[in-house]
Amino acid sequence: MLLKLKEIAERLGCRLDGDGEIEIARLAGIEEARAGDLTFFANPQYAAELRATQASAVILGERAEAAPCAMLRAPNPYFAFARAMELFAPASARPRGVHRTADVAATATIDPTASIGAFVSVGEGARIGARTVLYPQVTLGDGAIVGDDCVVHARVSIRERVAIGHRVVIQDGAVIGSDGFGFAQRPDGTHHKIPQVGGVVVEDDVEIGANTTIDRPAVGETRLGAGSKIDNLVQIAHGVRIGRDVLLAAQVGIAGSSTLEDRVTLAGQVGVAGHLTIGNGVIATAQTGIPNSIDAGAFVSGYPAIDNRDWLKSSAVFRRLPELRKAVADLQKRLEALEKQR
Amino acid sequence: MLLKLKEIAERLGCRLDGDGEIEIARLAGIEEARAGDLTFFANPQYAAELRATQASAVILGERAEAAPCAMLRAPNPYFAFARAMELFAPASARPRGVHRTADVAATATIDPTASIGAFVSVGEGARIGARTVLYPQVTLGDGAIVGDDCVVHARVSIRERVAIGHRVVIQDGAVIGSDGFGFAQRPDGTHHKIPQVGGVVVEDDVEIGANTTIDRPAVGETRLGAGSKIDNLVQIAHGVRIGRDVLLAAQVGIAGSSTLEDRVTLAGQVGVAGHLTIGNGVIATAQTGIPNSIDAGAFVSGYPAIDNRDWLKSSAVFRRLPELRKAVADLQKRLEALEKQR
Amino acid sequence: MLLKLKEIAERLGCRLDGDGEIEIARLAGIEEARAGDLTFFANPQYAAELRATQASAVILGERAEAAPCAMLRAPNPYFAFARAMELFAPASARPRGVHRTADVAATATIDPTASIGAFVSVGEGARIGARTVLYPQVTLGDGAIVGDDCVVHARVSIRERVAIGHRVVIQDGAVIGSDGFGFAQRPDGTHHKIPQVGGVVVEDDVEIGANTTIDRPAVGETRLGAGSKIDNLVQIAHGVRIGRDVLLAAQVGIAGSSTLEDRVTLAGQVGVAGHLTIGNGVIATAQTGIPNSIDAGAFVSGYPAIDNRDWLKSSAVFRRLPELRKAVADLQKRLEALEKQR
Repeated sequence: MLLKLKEIAERLGCRLDGDGEIEIARLAGIEEARAGDLTFFANPQYAAELRATQASAVILGERAEAAPCAMLRAPNPYFAFARAMELFAPASARPRGVHRTADVAATATIDPTASIGAFVSVGEGARIGARTVLYPQVTLGDGAIVGDDCVVHARVSIRERVAIGHRVVIQDGAVIGSDGFGFAQRPDGTHHKIPQVGGVVVEDDVEIGANTTIDRPAVGETRLGAGSKIDNLVQIAHGVRIGRDVLLAAQVGIAGSSTLEDRVTLAGQVGVAGHLTIGNGVIATAQTGIPNSIDAGAFVSGYPAIDNRDWLKSSAVFRRLPELRKAVADLQKRLEALEKQR
Repeated sequence: MLLKLKEIAERLGCRLDGDGEIEIARLAGIEEARAGDLTFFANPQYAAELRATQASAVILGERAEAAPCAMLRAPNPYFAFARAMELFAPASARPRGVHRTADVAATATIDPTASIGAFVSVGEGARIGARTVLYPQVTLGDGAIVGDDCVVHARVSIRERVAIGHRVVIQDGAVIGSDGFGFAQRPDGTHHKIPQVGGVVVEDDVEIGANTTIDRPAVGETRLGAGSKIDNLVQIAHGVRIGRDVLLAAQVGIAGSSTLEDRVTLAGQVGVAGHLTIGNGVIATAQTGIPNSIDAGAFVSGYPAIDNRDWLKSSAVFRRLPELRKAVADLQKRLEALEKQR
Repeated sequence: MLLKLKEIAERLGCRLDGDGEIEIARLAGIEEARAGDLTFFANPQYAAELRATQASAVILGERAEAAPCAMLRAPNPYFAFARAMELFAPASARPRGVHRTADVAATATIDPTASIGAFVSVGEGARIGARTVLYPQVTLGDGAIVGDDCVVHARVSIRERVAIGHRVVIQDGAVIGSDGFGFAQRPDGTHHKIPQVGGVVVEDDVEIGANTTIDRPAVGETRLGAGSKIDNLVQIAHGVRIGRDVLLAAQVGIAGSSTLEDRVTLAGQVGVAGHLTIGNGVIATAQTGIPNSIDAGAFVSGYPAIDNRDWLKSSAVFRRLPELRKAVADLQKRLEALEKQR
């Protein structure tokens, strides 16, 4: 597939600066791009790579420095690149209908435009919407619902009565609706399992990463708000409520009954304790440990989490603590000497 | 299903304070409970929610403040709630017998009361006990044993020769008996795989969370003691020994050959290094990193782990380190001035 | 199976010190070994266990203290033990050919010596090499390639167009080629998925742990270098490049586009931020958080990562911070008193 640069500029609404007749065959990263490739420049860390790129053209910001090739100027170059990818991405072509090996309960309802892969198991009363694709070995529990235009990759578990909205993407091996980790201590110190029979609701346009786990609660529901994106190996415990357009990077863990309001962003390996509220737009850097609720708009780091700038400053002192201790010991000696002189 | 409050009180052994004729249709969390619902109050953090609850009745402690609805007083309200859940929880109704699509080796032994789901693979010589349920797509390796009254959710791997006791619950996607991470360095610096052919034993009444991984060792065994409960995405390395009634929250990692004695509790994302002993009843708060053995009864936090109270105090100073450094610099200047005056 | 100790010594090239006629039936850990067992001593932490061992023979280093049993002296006792394991390990005996329940696309190519297990799904154009074993419920996407002599355990996802080399071992539930976590922010603050259609290449002799996830990028590739070993529940994001003979312990996370050069070793739960270069031979201790590139040969710890020795020293002061603060407050008072006297 070949597209002229001027055509790409037009479709993406970018300003063309250079030869629009160039034919683009492929999208590529700024380092590996070669003649015939279109690349992008969005992260200033790659300024040296931009200057040295072998690409035929680059998508970049309105004010970015000029590149040594044709340029497509865009207000949001990463978003423009995303849409360029869609021009070139091979369309997925899963066959419609139910694979001969799938096991579908008699009372399940599957839209005729859906695609159900090999060895998929669909429980009693489950429902699958229009144009939704289930890759091989997915399991859908009794009464589970998956909306329209979803893509459920191989080996995902969608447990009983879980409700998934429209345009949801779930990567391989994710588990939605496993039992929450709820036990009551018996008088003898052993643990008694509390039946976890609440619901899980995944709203529209959510993405859930590979091998991520989302638990159901004993009562009430666990809910992922519309547009939120969850990376791989994330743990979302029972009764957690996640707002809209939240981003959770890989290996984040959210303990039971906590609420993440809209547009919260947690970087990799962040942990959030139970029964907290993390306000609108909070950002936490990687590995932050959050033991208390956080006000909207905060930018936090550290374990336990504090304001990011304070944490950076304290961390800078932390690495010089041995010096600081020596300085204090030195002061003690000198002060003692002065005191003796009195 | 409707139950009168007095009947619930009787079955749970709670003291009824209010109208025993109220009909309860459902259990619900304290915030979402409505008329006809029974809720519970166990975490003092929810005192305001208790006062405002719309529930028809609440289970609460002997000394908790009075609620604006009928009350069931219990010495352990969370445990009473757990048992109330069981009165209302829909009984699982998996069909007995082996699903037509399952692949069971000729030499495997399956109790006729067991339920084997679609696309389950059972290896040579494997044994499955009475009333045990295997959900779809579970795989049981050669010689693996699962006891009576177990529930193995979809897509669990129970590898060759793993032995699972009775009343064990395993959530979706867990892996029991994967190869331990054991490599010997060759003279040229490359890594030589050590065959991991030891055993894994999971004792009675254990629960294992979704996508949790439990490795087998080269020699000897990995063992999970009776009554221990393991949350999602936990890593238990080769040769680890876990005692009785241990609680491991999500994303905990235990490195090879370490021992956790009875009733150890590790909160989310805690890491334990290899070849350690964590004594009876040790508690570690979330994200604690444990590089050394810990005596029984300790309560630890931090990275590296120290006594929890010390860690709280040190963390409080940590966030004021820039101030402390300034104070020291100020002292240095003033002391120098005094010294010059001499 | 019984082997005489002198025969084992010969096959491993160890120096025999003791009775070569002893018959060895089993390999065992130093604590559980009994008469008839061969054990090994490589970690000095187990010196007491060595003195008390009940084993009939032990593999140990050239200079290790004498044991109370026959000894096989080796320059690298752990490596010798690994090879001893191979003498005793039961040979895997998976049947050749394609299981009757597997679903193999007409255009896939499977070597006749390969073993394809129950409920395996193989996509269009996929290729599987000689003697490679796929355990039950593996899924291979369209165009995926697996080389010769690989072992792919149950329920692994190898997504479309992923290329796996020779002698690669993949533990249960791992996902290779899931979509990278790539989203561009739209002007309204919502997130737009960037098609992730790049490749994943896993070179020869790699091992990938249970439930580990390896993402594909939008453009270019994610690559795991030859001989690298990845433990369970590790996250490798889109576009990461991992060198040769790298070791990543459980629950490590590597963010997008970072490079780990050859022989890097990251202990459990380490996190590496995106777009970094971690130089040859870098070692990071457990839970280290790495926000910046690291020079070759460094040994780092902490969050944020600093030199290991500095971190140990600073951590030692950290636990005494309350004392240090009191010392400073005391100095302030005493200095003030002196100043007033002037």
